[in-house]
Amino acid sequence: MEYEGKHVAVLVAGSWGTALARVLIDNGHSVKLWTRNAAQAEEINRDKRNSKFLPDAQLPEGMTATTDMAEALDGATMVLFVAPSSAMREVARQAVNHIGAETLIVHATKGFESESLKRMTTVLAEELGRAEDTIVVLSGPSHAEEVVNRQPTTVVVAARDIRSAEAAQDYFMNEGYFRVYTNPDVIGVETAGAIKNIIALGAGLSDGLGFGDNAKAALITRGLAEISRLGGAMGANALTYAGLAGVGDLIVTCTSRHSRNWRAGSMLAQGLPLDEVLLRMGMVVEGVRTTKAAHDLAARHDVVMPITEQLFAVLFEGKSPARAVEELMGRVRTHEIEETAVSSVESGRDSKSSN
Amino acid sequence: MEYEGKHVAVLVAGSWGTALARVLIDNGHSVKLWTRNAAQAEEINRDKRNSKFLPDAQLPEGMTATTDMAEALDGATMVLFVAPSSAMREVARQAVNHIGAETLIVHATKGFESESLKRMTTVLAEELGRAEDTIVVLSGPSHAEEVVNRQPTTVVVAARDIRSAEAAQDYFMNEGYFRVYTNPDVIGVETAGAIKNIIALGAGLSDGLGFGDNAKAALITRGLAEISRLGGAMGANALTYAGLAGVGDLIVTCTSRHSRNWRAGSMLAQGLPLDEVLLRMGMVVEGVRTTKAAHDLAARHDVVMPITEQLFAVLFEGKSPARAVEELMGRVRTHEIEETAVSSVESGRDSKSSN
Repeated sequence: MEYEGKHVAVLVAGSWGTALARVLIDNGHSVKLWTRNAAQAEEINRDKRNSKFLPDAQLPEGMTATTDMAEALDGATMVLFVAPSSAMREVARQAVNHIGAETLIVHATKGFESESLKRMTTVLAEELGRAEDTIVVLSGPSHAEEVVNRQPTTVVVAARDIRSAEAAQDYFMNEGYFRVYTNPDVIGVETAGAIKNIIALGAGLSDGLGFGDNAKAALITRGLAEISRLGGAMGANALTYAGLAGVGDLIVTCTSRHSRNWRAGSMLAQGLPLDEVLLRMGMVVEGVRTTKAAHDLAARHDVVMPITEQLFAVLFEGKSPARAVEELMGRVRTHEIEETAVSSVESGRDSKSSN
Repeated sequence: MEYEGKHVAVLVAGSWGTALARVLIDNGHSVKLWTRNAAQAEEINRDKRNSKFLPDAQLPEGMTATTDMAEALDGATMVLFVAPSSAMREVARQAVNHIGAETLIVHATKGFESESLKRMTTVLAEELGRAEDTIVVLSGPSHAEEVVNRQPTTVVVAARDIRSAEAAQDYFMNEGYFRVYTNPDVIGVETAGAIKNIIALGAGLSDGLGFGDNAKAALITRGLAEISRLGGAMGANALTYAGLAGVGDLIVTCTSRHSRNWRAGSMLAQGLPLDEVLLRMGMVVEGVRTTKAAHDLAARHDVVMPITEQLFAVLFEGKSPARAVEELMGRVRTHEIEETAVSSVESGRDSKSSN
């Protein structure tokens, strides 16, 4: 096979990086995970386990890890960046001198850079000195816990340079359980992947407060509209949001207990303060940071994002989750009236209540 | 209040009709449920319970039922038809002579008429001798079990004649838990509501066979594309499918155990034959009949509907559920390539597998 025997470096060894490493190994590539944590690297090498991030998974024999960036990247024809959004720039800086000019750059991180509000492809392009068009994002409805167990999964790889997306597709695609589609709409895929974590926090809040499936479905539907509005203002293709990286990922994140953003939301609903929730999660909850970024992006692009605003108030301004969700429920009508461009077909009106 | 004290007839007393009757009673209207079943009418009148359809619900004091169609319709300013799709024409025939010319006609049934493949508004228009434009459909993410317990719910009322939709909105809308939006796209709302039951059967199959959340999210995403394709060919507005009656209802039906279509699918996955599943359900499973209708509509409109076709083969041609789901998973790529009009942003290609 053309691509057999290629070498991939995966930075870093979180749950998604480890799961994607298993796909690459299954596809015949050699993979080296990079992590700052020596004990984690040793556990992966010795026990073929990554107990912090994927406690139930037995990793394949070929899975190896290192704390040495030069070693991880040596001979790599593809580098997969899966660092948390807050660490992406720093990890790229550490990696840049060990990456060849021809090496394919892919990332699978869902979030924006704080303060700069840049998308991950932009951050990587800046730090790696690459044309942004050639940098690929991988996204879609894909819990790591299922992928590492080879359960059927479909994802999207997006790059403006379609040949780069197709090259990434060749690395990841297999006939067994992992299907990969290409999409030129990087902005759509990155915004959808990032912002759905906010909606998942909101879904966790709603569930945690005892609201039902009807309310959650309305919240998810409005969340999709909210994502589409911001993405549209940023230049995304609306069709992306109807696809795997849009509604597909939104559904899986909002309705599955695997989702750490959903879990964080449900803990917040129980009255736990944010720092306590983050402590108990023990992992990065991208939705928290993304709420801040999307709040700022909404202001920059003059877009109305009611769910993001309510989450922002709960996370950073001490608003009670119950009050936030109540206001969201109450604001549905107003919202759908205002947003004629997005949801004109459901335009409401100043109707009288009949009771 | 302008609408207080109006009288509504609800035909028939299934779970959704009973739940919507509770909304109308909460809104200050008098309501009479009509049912063919004398024991059921007596139970509703005497015990304020509808144990077959909503076994856990205590119904309000004002809820009354009758087997006498003339009595149910006497003085009604609105008639809500919620008969199964197979019974809609017959119920309308029984009702027509008791309905005044000014009475508002609303239905909340999700399905097509067998053989004719007509939408429910068309069936009602024909039998009631009304302009189809004035007939309203109510749809959206709304499990009856939650509505009857006053859990927050949002729905859409659609009619080409917007004043009819707004009149229905006035009857149903309340500030407490039931929010109602208008939409002029009747075809979109009716096709979305009907066909999502097929996707829910498929989701139940997938879950019942042990596939994970990633696979189900991909199935739902493809289901949305499939619904949009058929609806588009029938004249619907694509935006409807991104709203409450589209993706909202699809999510709630595919991810909730309240859904009888999902439950029927999961029973089929366990190897029970269709007649046994229907017997155990004890209620109409609209998705079964809709699979046949959508199969025929797909042929009529020359639209590709892979999920519908696989369900059709399972339900009516004895295909094994495992094989159907496997083929669906395997066909994702082919499908998304073909449907460039709908999902061009996720266009695949003849990529090589890398293992």
